[in-house]
Amino acid sequence: MTGYTTENHKDLKVFSGRAHSKLAEAVAAELGIELVPTTARDFANGEIFIRFEESVRGADCFVMQSHCQPINTWLMEQLIMIDALKRGSAKRITAIVPFYPYARQDKKHRGREPISARLVADLFAAAGADRLVAVDLHTDQIQGFFDGPVDHMHAMPILTEYIKSKYSMDNLCVVSPDAGRVKQAEKWANTLGDAPMAFVHKTRDIDAANQVVSNRVVGDVEGKDCVLMDDMIDTGGTIAGAVGVLKDAGAKSVIIACTHGVFSDPARERLSSCGAEEVITTDTLPQNTEGWENLTVLSIAPLLAKTIREIFENGSVTTLFEGQA
Amino acid sequence: MTGYTTENHKDLKVFSGRAHSKLAEAVAAELGIELVPTTARDFANGEIFIRFEESVRGADCFVMQSHCQPINTWLMEQLIMIDALKRGSAKRITAIVPFYPYARQDKKHRGREPISARLVADLFAAAGADRLVAVDLHTDQIQGFFDGPVDHMHAMPILTEYIKSKYSMDNLCVVSPDAGRVKQAEKWANTLGDAPMAFVHKTRDIDAANQVVSNRVVGDVEGKDCVLMDDMIDTGGTIAGAVGVLKDAGAKSVIIACTHGVFSDPARERLSSCGAEEVITTDTLPQNTEGWENLTVLSIAPLLAKTIREIFENGSVTTLFEGQA
Amino acid sequence: MTGYTTENHKDLKVFSGRAHSKLAEAVAAELGIELVPTTARDFANGEIFIRFEESVRGADCFVMQSHCQPINTWLMEQLIMIDALKRGSAKRITAIVPFYPYARQDKKHRGREPISARLVADLFAAAGADRLVAVDLHTDQIQGFFDGPVDHMHAMPILTEYIKSKYSMDNLCVVSPDAGRVKQAEKWANTLGDAPMAFVHKTRDIDAANQVVSNRVVGDVEGKDCVLMDDMIDTGGTIAGAVGVLKDAGAKSVIIACTHGVFSDPARERLSSCGAEEVITTDTLPQNTEGWENLTVLSIAPLLAKTIREIFENGSVTTLFEGQA
Amino acid sequence: MTGYTTENHKDLKVFSGRAHSKLAEAVAAELGIELVPTTARDFANGEIFIRFEESVRGADCFVMQSHCQPINTWLMEQLIMIDALKRGSAKRITAIVPFYPYARQDKKHRGREPISARLVADLFAAAGADRLVAVDLHTDQIQGFFDGPVDHMHAMPILTEYIKSKYSMDNLCVVSPDAGRVKQAEKWANTLGDAPMAFVHKTRDIDAANQVVSNRVVGDVEGKDCVLMDDMIDTGGTIAGAVGVLKDAGAKSVIIACTHGVFSDPARERLSSCGAEEVITTDTLPQNTEGWENLTVLSIAPLLAKTIREIFENGSVTTLFEGQA
Amino acid sequence: MTGYTTENHKDLKVFSGRAHSKLAEAVAAELGIELVPTTARDFANGEIFIRFEESVRGADCFVMQSHCQPINTWLMEQLIMIDALKRGSAKRITAIVPFYPYARQDKKHRGREPISARLVADLFAAAGADRLVAVDLHTDQIQGFFDGPVDHMHAMPILTEYIKSKYSMDNLCVVSPDAGRVKQAEKWANTLGDAPMAFVHKTRDIDAANQVVSNRVVGDVEGKDCVLMDDMIDTGGTIAGAVGVLKDAGAKSVIIACTHGVFSDPARERLSSCGAEEVITTDTLPQNTEGWENLTVLSIAPLLAKTIREIFENGSVTTLFEGQA
Amino acid sequence: MTGYTTENHKDLKVFSGRAHSKLAEAVAAELGIELVPTTARDFANGEIFIRFEESVRGADCFVMQSHCQPINTWLMEQLIMIDALKRGSAKRITAIVPFYPYARQDKKHRGREPISARLVADLFAAAGADRLVAVDLHTDQIQGFFDGPVDHMHAMPILTEYIKSKYSMDNLCVVSPDAGRVKQAEKWANTLGDAPMAFVHKTRDIDAANQVVSNRVVGDVEGKDCVLMDDMIDTGGTIAGAVGVLKDAGAKSVIIACTHGVFSDPARERLSSCGAEEVITTDTLPQNTEGWENLTVLSIAPLLAKTIREIFENGSVTTLFEGQA
Repeated sequence: MTGYTTENHKDLKVFSGRAHSKLAEAVAAELGIELVPTTARDFANGEIFIRFEESVRGADCFVMQSHCQPINTWLMEQLIMIDALKRGSAKRITAIVPFYPYARQDKKHRGREPISARLVADLFAAAGADRLVAVDLHTDQIQGFFDGPVDHMHAMPILTEYIKSKYSMDNLCVVSPDAGRVKQAEKWANTLGDAPMAFVHKTRDIDAANQVVSNRVVGDVEGKDCVLMDDMIDTGGTIAGAVGVLKDAGAKSVIIACTHGVFSDPARERLSSCGAEEVITTDTLPQNTEGWENLTVLSIAPLLAKTIREIFENGSVTTLFEGQA
Repeated sequence: MTGYTTENHKDLKVFSGRAHSKLAEAVAAELGIELVPTTARDFANGEIFIRFEESVRGADCFVMQSHCQPINTWLMEQLIMIDALKRGSAKRITAIVPFYPYARQDKKHRGREPISARLVADLFAAAGADRLVAVDLHTDQIQGFFDGPVDHMHAMPILTEYIKSKYSMDNLCVVSPDAGRVKQAEKWANTLGDAPMAFVHKTRDIDAANQVVSNRVVGDVEGKDCVLMDDMIDTGGTIAGAVGVLKDAGAKSVIIACTHGVFSDPARERLSSCGAEEVITTDTLPQNTEGWENLTVLSIAPLLAKTIREIFENGSVTTLFEGQA
Repeated sequence: MTGYTTENHKDLKVFSGRAHSKLAEAVAAELGIELVPTTARDFANGEIFIRFEESVRGADCFVMQSHCQPINTWLMEQLIMIDALKRGSAKRITAIVPFYPYARQDKKHRGREPISARLVADLFAAAGADRLVAVDLHTDQIQGFFDGPVDHMHAMPILTEYIKSKYSMDNLCVVSPDAGRVKQAEKWANTLGDAPMAFVHKTRDIDAANQVVSNRVVGDVEGKDCVLMDDMIDTGGTIAGAVGVLKDAGAKSVIIACTHGVFSDPARERLSSCGAEEVITTDTLPQNTEGWENLTVLSIAPLLAKTIREIFENGSVTTLFEGQA
Repeated sequence: MTGYTTENHKDLKVFSGRAHSKLAEAVAAELGIELVPTTARDFANGEIFIRFEESVRGADCFVMQSHCQPINTWLMEQLIMIDALKRGSAKRITAIVPFYPYARQDKKHRGREPISARLVADLFAAAGADRLVAVDLHTDQIQGFFDGPVDHMHAMPILTEYIKSKYSMDNLCVVSPDAGRVKQAEKWANTLGDAPMAFVHKTRDIDAANQVVSNRVVGDVEGKDCVLMDDMIDTGGTIAGAVGVLKDAGAKSVIIACTHGVFSDPARERLSSCGAEEVITTDTLPQNTEGWENLTVLSIAPLLAKTIREIFENGSVTTLFEGQA
Repeated sequence: MTGYTTENHKDLKVFSGRAHSKLAEAVAAELGIELVPTTARDFANGEIFIRFEESVRGADCFVMQSHCQPINTWLMEQLIMIDALKRGSAKRITAIVPFYPYARQDKKHRGREPISARLVADLFAAAGADRLVAVDLHTDQIQGFFDGPVDHMHAMPILTEYIKSKYSMDNLCVVSPDAGRVKQAEKWANTLGDAPMAFVHKTRDIDAANQVVSNRVVGDVEGKDCVLMDDMIDTGGTIAGAVGVLKDAGAKSVIIACTHGVFSDPARERLSSCGAEEVITTDTLPQNTEGWENLTVLSIAPLLAKTIREIFENGSVTTLFEGQA
Repeated sequence: MTGYTTENHKDLKVFSGRAHSKLAEAVAAELGIELVPTTARDFANGEIFIRFEESVRGADCFVMQSHCQPINTWLMEQLIMIDALKRGSAKRITAIVPFYPYARQDKKHRGREPISARLVADLFAAAGADRLVAVDLHTDQIQGFFDGPVDHMHAMPILTEYIKSKYSMDNLCVVSPDAGRVKQAEKWANTLGDAPMAFVHKTRDIDAANQVVSNRVVGDVEGKDCVLMDDMIDTGGTIAGAVGVLKDAGAKSVIIACTHGVFSDPARERLSSCGAEEVITTDTLPQNTEGWENLTVLSIAPLLAKTIREIFENGSVTTLFEGQA
């Protein structure tokens, strides 16, 4: 007989880009491992250099990166890391993308626009990613932009558990800040004791990003404790406006909850002063609670750690969130 | 000098599958041309055979098919036509898909499900389609499932023009039949004189297709003439239920409008007897008004003909629907 | 050290579409396992929905489907199952295709025709199949249509063993029903004791499917017990005609043997009454012997089970049929 | 308005590898053009160097090569020419392959064999060929190995016209040298006045290339003028053996006709002395009639020239051979 | 006859990213056209939004971008522009990349590094670019990283023409700043009157980017007027060090010439004070001569304009630089 | 529970083409295994036939071939072997290419040339190779031509160890035979005790392969023992000329060292008589020392064996040559 035979082990390795290493370290700690030591450096003209300091040959590799500012730099860094893993003979490469970049450009709103969210999926594939893990994609359909497995995790249970533990369910009303989030709000309402629902009927000016014109509330919020939810909050204009509209419509109180706290300027000012009792978010992006009293940050790290473990050990990720793929 | 040089013309050719040749003929008539003569035949075991009866070499080819029942057969027929064009040296192949099949399976609702709408895009690409034209995709994101140009046309102007011409705008309310269509309903409301809005807050049983449990109306419909809109109506259960809920909530009247009238059994019965004044749809799928008095069918053919002409002549499709790509 | 290491197991899982679950169950029984529980359902408009009821993550998955009528539906179902496995993180996906659909369209007979058999291979690849298993492809070259491993199994040994066990070899003559099967007939003749050969020289009208004009026999069949063989029998016109031609040419008796009994109408009538002593086929497609006295169905299940086991355990499939891989 | 607009011409350019430039020159002469001047040179270690001596930018390029000995070198030269055209911005690249290399390895005869004919198609695609033109592929299915248009031309009309012009049709019999060519022989028989048919039932030793054991004739050849046809003749062993078998079976005379005269040693000796009256072939491969009295070479150049012209001018290639794709 | 036929025109359109619109405008002015009006905007979190303000359907599109700081942002912007063109039905997309980003990472210097220059080529392909135009790639082999036409233009003639017009050729010596540029220096020496050559033998610390240790000169520079050339100068450390080494070795004077003046901090200080008489570069990247007296910037715009025109009109780009395409 | 589970082993198998089986056997011996028995045979017209004589299903396969004359034949043989492995269900296929063919054509020197080294990478990918192993690529950038892992091994340590063991380091000077190898020479100089350097400033006539015009030495070689190094020596013209130039410039002695001894005619004569003391090379290509007294051949087999073992066992190849992967 020719050749020889050995047993086949599999090795888990987790890598982190520089955007939000605190989250990656928390995930590694949950898994009881350390991140693979990695040299990451910028050349003087901004080109990124990467080298891994131990062999990745044959390993099952998970590459974490958060896509905060400067978002294009961090995306490029993750692509370069994936390329280095591919050329270093990694067995399988999973890109972990807690906040999927360019998710809002998931369709052409008008002619001659890009579909940048599909482009991002294509860039991950071109670099060599075999699989993606994401948290609360702006729309579920983004799963279909990638030609391979996408494990789509949800922060809603983390957020709703917190709300249930702190607030009374008796007088709640779940509110979507615009017409496009009503379906998600319906899921929240089902989870929060079949609460009643409402949404803010607004007009978004298609020519000007981040500028919205909030107006009337559809649904009855008078005297209610409103949970105003969204997947992401960027400059906070829409949400802060919605708080005002709800108050005008007679809401008793408003709390804000979102998975992705982008919080670009002037979100801190707006959300601190908009009249909401509490702003609840997660650490899919790096957060700074200093000087922002009513901001609560819940950690996504245990969820990501469990997801990585199930993927590595061929368990079921579905069981982590029955009914939400 | 070697070689020789000739002028370069371009030839438009339109082909039709067997599912809904009446629509294709109407489109050809609008363009002032005839469909390319095509042999299409079923073998005894159901395999489809295709041959084109004139040369397609170097032509700009548009392949129309409607995806009514038996839907998998008509999809396969269109793929086979595209393969034959590719192998017959067509220059460019555009698949025209007025009703995009499997559009409802545009994401994984739970684990271990397919994303069949992405699969369909991949099948078109595998067969050799360079471009797609679709009408009112179930979600706009399906554009991003195809790695190439998708011209996404909208029937809303056709439907709202008709409504405006026949009904008074004074007392209208636009209603979405469920939480997932509220954003589309907002566009209708903007078009129909900034009409007020409402939606039906329902629970869909994830384990049973086509079964829904309609319940409370969010928004105020009392005394209103409701325009209940949707992109497609299949068995009509959701819509008929919504009519009942609206009536219970005090609506004065209800008209139903949708782009894609799938009308699987028992839609005819349900929609005829549900209390709606009129059901308005288009001919993206073959329709039969016989014995269904309050059904109105508007033709999509002029829109498709204009789209084909603009694509062929490198005009702008965007201008056909400013602001809707 | 970073990361952690575990042993690497591999899991066999077998899935079945709805076309011919009896065959899949027989295969599973041979393997001593059960089929993976699968939800398969038709939407009212004919769209197929699939969900697997247990995790497929990391498994070596075999997806069985038989391609009987409605053939396009069952092909689409298998493609959707493959897509769901791909997105559910299956490690490797093997499509088992006992009767390869559209195998007869394996070339362009004239210009502007498709090569649908190649298209089918491309569709399997687009959906995510890594490998194919097929039985008695219409032409061996179809193996080359798929860019990956194709295990091509043969039913001839099963059929010839049966013939040897039941009939005397002394007076046999192997007959090909047309000029295109003579090479296969030669293999049968070699297996059946170097029997003499003949074929029917016929003209097939290229414009009309399933219609043939049988005429003279080439080779000497007078007084012989003829084994009339083919890979597939559809409506039975060619074969029934060949029986008549053989009888006219003095054949003593005729038995018919084929791998794929498609038996579209009016095959049952034709073959029951054509004068053949026995019609022998396999269950690559679902068969019904009721009311058809001289039909014998041999099971392909043990062969498929052995093939799956060898593939899964990295044994040799070639050894199953020395000289015919 | 931005940009500017010009008329769009198209340019035909024909290139030739070094294997059989005489054929390419004959084709160019038929087209009334000259071949594009090309530098082709071997490095001392056998690596091939190519440069085109005029711009190919935007041209419709046809690259001719014949695949005689050393066959791998000429294949590689054609691939390198295609790569140079791709990188030189050719608009469309058609590889002209009169004798398709490795056509005999179009399937796995046993396990762990390549399908080299598919590999060749993949190599053409990898290098950048958009289309193929071939003459009399060993099996028609090879068309399906390439994912793009394949124009498959046939030499049979050229060969049968010659036979008709020189021999009487009254006593002809068409003979296939083995079981695998019977279908092609049937086409010849149909063309040659519905002549009767026969074939030689032989055994090919699967372990030894080019060695065959001819034996009995199936069909009646006694007193007949036999046309022994094949697609290609390599060493001539099978064919020379078949002549002997036919003579033994009482054939009055034998002429041999094939499209591809490979004529590897010792074909010249065998075919000169085997007793055949005439050996007819074409110049798909370079031929040398010197010292071989009964060899007749018909030119394929007019057919290739017409094909190129039709492809370039978007005419119909099908009309060149109605009914033969 | 079906269909209809029109003449086929072709349209040139030039687009510019925001990095260096002055260069694009200069190119457009040379071509006598205007840039296509484009909306480019940053969302608050740094995501880029693009829309073209006129139809691009069927046009031959050239997308210019310079890759200065922030380099990853400008690369991503160009990719998004390409995606928008692809989805907007552009006929052909050429990415113009005067300074190719990440060109220095064109190989793995050690294990587990990326090859970022190949990744960049893959990203352009994934986004939809059909062709690239680049100026003075760091190594010529980068052409081979892209699977399509790359027009590789050279600034050397522009730089050497300037030097010839300003300096005497009598006492020149061409110096490469390190061992890796000696071959390029040889081309300069050939162009500058077969001038003698030298190079600086240095050691680059592989662990620290942009840090080099210059030392001895190989070749004789005593009393010479040295032309110290390079493809790009980043922080200027190597070059400034080389000037010192040359002076120490007795050079009479030194001028510096490079195609790509990246000039990251502290290049301005270093090069102003290093003792070189003049620093000559081009505007492949935006340059600012203010406060830098001995900096000369030559424009690459006429070269790019001529290249675009030749590509669009299917002329020969090779003729622009005989022997260097 | 459905399915069943087994342990997962992995199998190493090594295959060899016919070009240089002695090297493959030496590698196998180092690994303590035997080569997989393989049938390789030429058809009479030069087509290659391959069959493996044992199952390769699921194995980790390494396919060795040396690319000596006839180089296109051996390349094609390796591609066919890879195709056969792919279709035979090998798990992973690594092509081992000690001397990468067409490495010198790694860029377009002028317009309308191929980039044959990239083409070769594409052909390996098209055939089904997952990974490459190469030794001393002509330029490091060729790594980036392949879209997957390339393990790039270096023979320099083997060559320099030998030189150190035989010659005194005191008076050495490292010489590059042309401007393009100076960077590699710098590495040698660093390894050989920081020896001084020189190079030969030559002109290569771009229109004539293998013809060079050597002239002046840059650097000081007077009285030195010169190590004249190169990656490959083909006809030896450049190198023999360089020896003369060095002697003329006062060199005391010259030894020649290269990784790839191509030694096409008349290299033996030139190098035997050029005045060099010793010519040192490796067996990446087959070598014959008979009748060539001053030729020394060092074996690359231990290095390749270690590389294969590390790849198979997921060790680190980088550690084999720290700093040079």
